[in-house]
Amino acid sequence: MSKEKYDALYARMQTLTDIYGIGGVAQWDMQTHMPPRGAAVRAERLATLTTIGHEWLTSSETGDLIARSEDYVRNQGEDSLEYAIWRVSKRHYDKATVIPSELAADLDRAASNGHVAWVSARKNNDYEGFKPYLQKNIDLLHQVIDLSRGLYPEAEEDYDILLDDYEQGMKTSDIAAVFDQFKVGAKPLVEKVAAHMGDGRDAATFGNFPADQQEKLAREILAAVGFNDDEFDLTKTAHPFEHSMSIHDIRITTKYDEGFFNPCFFGTLHEFGHGIYENQIDDTYERTVLARGVSMAWHESQSRMWENLVGRSLPFWKWAAPKVKAVFPDQFGSMDAEDIYRAVNMMGPSLIRIEADELTYNYHIIIRFELERELLAGTVTVDDLPDAWNAKYKDYLGVDVPDYSDGVLQDVHWSGGSMGYFPTYALGNILGAMLWQKINTELPNLASEFEAGEFGSLRNWSRENIHRHGSFYTPNDLLQKVLGTRTLDAQPQIDFLTAKVNELYG
Amino acid sequence: MSKEKYDALYARMQTLTDIYGIGGVAQWDMQTHMPPRGAAVRAERLATLTTIGHEWLTSSETGDLIARSEDYVRNQGEDSLEYAIWRVSKRHYDKATVIPSELAADLDRAASNGHVAWVSARKNNDYEGFKPYLQKNIDLLHQVIDLSRGLYPEAEEDYDILLDDYEQGMKTSDIAAVFDQFKVGAKPLVEKVAAHMGDGRDAATFGNFPADQQEKLAREILAAVGFNDDEFDLTKTAHPFEHSMSIHDIRITTKYDEGFFNPCFFGTLHEFGHGIYENQIDDTYERTVLARGVSMAWHESQSRMWENLVGRSLPFWKWAAPKVKAVFPDQFGSMDAEDIYRAVNMMGPSLIRIEADELTYNYHIIIRFELERELLAGTVTVDDLPDAWNAKYKDYLGVDVPDYSDGVLQDVHWSGGSMGYFPTYALGNILGAMLWQKINTELPNLASEFEAGEFGSLRNWSRENIHRHGSFYTPNDLLQKVLGTRTLDAQPQIDFLTAKVNELYG
Repeated sequence: MSKEKYDALYARMQTLTDIYGIGGVAQWDMQTHMPPRGAAVRAERLATLTTIGHEWLTSSETGDLIARSEDYVRNQGEDSLEYAIWRVSKRHYDKATVIPSELAADLDRAASNGHVAWVSARKNNDYEGFKPYLQKNIDLLHQVIDLSRGLYPEAEEDYDILLDDYEQGMKTSDIAAVFDQFKVGAKPLVEKVAAHMGDGRDAATFGNFPADQQEKLAREILAAVGFNDDEFDLTKTAHPFEHSMSIHDIRITTKYDEGFFNPCFFGTLHEFGHGIYENQIDDTYERTVLARGVSMAWHESQSRMWENLVGRSLPFWKWAAPKVKAVFPDQFGSMDAEDIYRAVNMMGPSLIRIEADELTYNYHIIIRFELERELLAGTVTVDDLPDAWNAKYKDYLGVDVPDYSDGVLQDVHWSGGSMGYFPTYALGNILGAMLWQKINTELPNLASEFEAGEFGSLRNWSRENIHRHGSFYTPNDLLQKVLGTRTLDAQPQIDFLTAKVNELYG
Repeated sequence: MSKEKYDALYARMQTLTDIYGIGGVAQWDMQTHMPPRGAAVRAERLATLTTIGHEWLTSSETGDLIARSEDYVRNQGEDSLEYAIWRVSKRHYDKATVIPSELAADLDRAASNGHVAWVSARKNNDYEGFKPYLQKNIDLLHQVIDLSRGLYPEAEEDYDILLDDYEQGMKTSDIAAVFDQFKVGAKPLVEKVAAHMGDGRDAATFGNFPADQQEKLAREILAAVGFNDDEFDLTKTAHPFEHSMSIHDIRITTKYDEGFFNPCFFGTLHEFGHGIYENQIDDTYERTVLARGVSMAWHESQSRMWENLVGRSLPFWKWAAPKVKAVFPDQFGSMDAEDIYRAVNMMGPSLIRIEADELTYNYHIIIRFELERELLAGTVTVDDLPDAWNAKYKDYLGVDVPDYSDGVLQDVHWSGGSMGYFPTYALGNILGAMLWQKINTELPNLASEFEAGEFGSLRNWSRENIHRHGSFYTPNDLLQKVLGTRTLDAQPQIDFLTAKVNELYG
């Protein structure tokens, strides 16, 4: 009897993954091919699909199947597929059912309105115009938190509850601790690279890079690292992202800045890192709730690994330099692998997060995390926010913020009511460095393989240890399984960056 | 009370159009971007969405709303929006509810299996291998007909019932009459052009046409006829088609044959004709069951108009020749507008439908229609089919069919159980010529406008008289409204072709 309930739950969640999967196609299309005037109807259609999915998920039938299959899945053991599917299904159900549909609609509306207001505010350097929308989003998040409190008896502070959407089981206090560790440990490095800013080592990465040539090069590099046309697609977009339609249907998007080499080259490696994670999930999990990377930080650890730990390494450039020089001889023709390696590793404090280098990126994130935490606790208000922002940029990066648009208004996230997401970017970097230490111990020939253009053992290691599990384990259990710890540690990233900065900046 | 029921029906059908609309995105993607290994999961997801849509449409709630809003919509009058939406909703509901879901699943499965068998059979010239699948499809169509009989008390023969899916209200006997008219009237023309086959006038259309240059030219021509990037998208595919995501989101697809000029050039004009129909539907009908071209023949009349009546006309070439010569100087550089006009109007009897010219195309269709009708009546069996096919090709076109692959196995339609679709292609040509006569009476300056690259008055006429109505009128009522008749007449097409053949072939 209970097995029947589990089977029915399995089928019910399979339908839900199909609904979300079809919605994903429509969202990918919206950002890649849809002509502008298709937007209004597309939004309506997606809202309809979201409603259908929400009703399907939160129906009493779903709740009943979860309740009645619990005995059965617990009997299978906590390491069973049945238990994992049940656990993740219950998590989705619980999180969705505490939010009444009116509040869900309010959240959507505030996010839409906030986005429109943000676009205009950013364009006009008008923080005052954006402020009421930001306040509205924060008010709604407090409602979500109040309604969700029962699901998180272990929460130490309200921010923990928001964080759980992106990083299940993560504590705000743990993030603060590992970020403080990074801030202190990396500070001398920031000071060192700041002294070298403007030395021109990156001059060749600016110039003339025709889009079709960038695409040709990107496809050549991607093919070597593991992109194949049977399972991957590369398409142009305004704001690059990766989306998996299913385990063997991976969409990578990029944009072509014809004046700057880095965005497409490293952006496609970054999105490939997300894509290969989704692509190497165990086929058994297809069309189940487990067929997704387990958390944002885990995902970012993989994308940043391919972008930075692989793509910005000297062994990689010993292999890639001739290919890049062949496609862009005017820009890179007179440089050797080490020159290009130095050029693409230009570091220095800056204003804009998305243009930040491997070292200073985390500071941009830490600033946002600290401000989100204070906004939610009420120790910083929306009135105080720009001053608090500017003070932290001065303090952590030595940077003066000249206006709102390049300061507190630079990112889209808050306009859509998204808080708790930002820290996962830096956690991904920190986790990536922890993994990289372990990987290099277990795969001692990685450098020489990269020099030969071989990336298979890195893909295999990632598949075996991380990717294939999808969402089978919780993020914390996966950390325990892969690295034998439940605590993030910034020291590997500090050590890695220290060695790299010393090598590149004397 | 009854108004409330109508509003509820309206909303319910709006949800259904959203579900189908999202499914349309996934289908477009499947044929344009999806990597091959995404196919299996995509098929499952689409099946799930189809089931959701089918259950939504055929539920007792839908039936109840249709029944309870009938008084209200009839009171609004048969020319009201409310009545039109109710009428088309009821049509969808009635047609869907007579088919039990097991039979729907059998039809899907037989279509899938039939398609796989056809691909292999065509490749291996193996009609025997395909025969059982064709028989299975015919058997299932008989089941559909038997279950649907109650919906068509006016049907004269079983084929009428299949036809209704594509051409509501059309009678098989009417099609046979108009096709016979065409067969007789156009026969001397076929004999005339056959005598000129191989005279080399089309030599320039074969050669070297790089895909990127074809795309550039296609975009230039499309922009002039009415394609705009705010509402249209052009993408590559293997089997070109048009799909509208919504009224202002029109997708045109094409393929690039680098050895042959015609397929992309005339194919994009053809798909544009479908697209502009959907694009000019009244905005009031968006997200309703009326936001679709009314029938296949009406749709094909528009696509064929842009492909042939515009794109293969001399005035068009007086404008287009310099553009085409600029992009392909090696191929067309030494030719003038009349030369190119003659080259792209090469006519002559041939084996393959999709490669047929404006004149002989209808014969290919007539052969298929006559055979479908006999297969369904049982006067031709699947065993007799290849001989019957070959005899008709000899009789109507004077062509000897050398093998199955280029004969009875050349088209995909029957493998998927689709019968009743083929005749709409030729009906579209015939209707298009009737409309063209009327249009040229009402717009006497069309030729000089085309020579100047102006296509706005044709678009406007089509919008005002045809496109804006979407599915508001039945196909027959629209015919009455636009042309003042309820009967198709092949004479305008015969007259048009007679004049053209005399001009081009002396």
